[in-house]
Amino acid sequence: MTQLRILGIDPGLNRCGWGLVASEGSRLSYVAHGVIAPKAQQQLATRLHEVFEGLCAVMAEFAPHEVAVEETFVNSNARAALALGQARGVALAAAARSSALVAEYAPATIKKAVVGSGSADKTQVAFMVRRLLPTAGDVSADAADALGVALCHAAHGGFRRRAGA
Amino acid sequence: MTQLRILGIDPGLNRCGWGLVASEGSRLSYVAHGVIAPKAQQQLATRLHEVFEGLCAVMAEFAPHEVAVEETFVNSNARAALALGQARGVALAAAARSSALVAEYAPATIKKAVVGSGSADKTQVAFMVRRLLPTAGDVSADAADALGVALCHAAHGGFRRRAGA
Repeated sequence: MTQLRILGIDPGLNRCGWGLVASEGSRLSYVAHGVIAPKAQQQLATRLHEVFEGLCAVMAEFAPHEVAVEETFVNSNARAALALGQARGVALAAAARSSALVAEYAPATIKKAVVGSGSADKTQVAFMVRRLLPTAGDVSADAADALGVALCHAAHGGFRRRAGA
Repeated sequence: MTQLRILGIDPGLNRCGWGLVASEGSRLSYVAHGVIAPKAQQQLATRLHEVFEGLCAVMAEFAPHEVAVEETFVNSNARAALALGQARGVALAAAARSSALVAEYAPATIKKAVVGSGSADKTQVAFMVRRLLPTAGDVSADAADALGVALCHAAHGGFRRRAGA
């Protein structure tokens, strides 16, 4: 059975989480995770470029087949949406740079896939991520979110592949 | 007198304008301009990466000393702000990739520098850009905006250098 490496990304300018899982049939296993955290005192352009470069380095090292990015939550605050949009833009551009398939998932979809409820809070997602991927150890909140995106994609990808087979 | 090449960028996902001017003392001259327009039917990530790659190619060809990016206008529409933020994120990351100094200017600052009034409309900016840079020829609206950002930076850069000298 072919192994599929899935990279999940939780875009952020201050802390961009990433998490890699391997899917083999119905078996899921932990591969790696990390957080890219550019120094806050740097210029915005420099920080965005560090996120881009960091993600490109992760993709060069692990060569994921598929990349799943968390869709930024758009609330009524346009300034916050703009800032999140910038980080998400570089994450998507970095993903497109690799030859991986790129998918996006809304936060509620990720929570539903990982915890079973779209209204679950972040601690429940982190709890289930540690439960489903016990070898990941004590992952930080950002990396747990990113691993959650990857798990969500694995669940949906499974459905898609079954449906398309 | 040293020549300073300034690249202006008007970030956009559908049409990202760029314009290059050379500043030598108080003399300004037109160098080049263009628009990066990824095909709309492509995936978002692919289009963002095309904007990134296009801007990197422009910077590799012309090696600007300074890059000026138009600040996205944040209105009350969070969804539009998110979309603009994505394009602006890749433009800033591409600018930081070169060794150029990166500056940002609000639309009103650009209009004031080029036309003399912060409330001028886009056609007035385009008119003054063609007037100030007659060798640019018939530039499109997006490229005129980008050349306007470069002209604005030249004006402000001149002040800064005089002030700092």
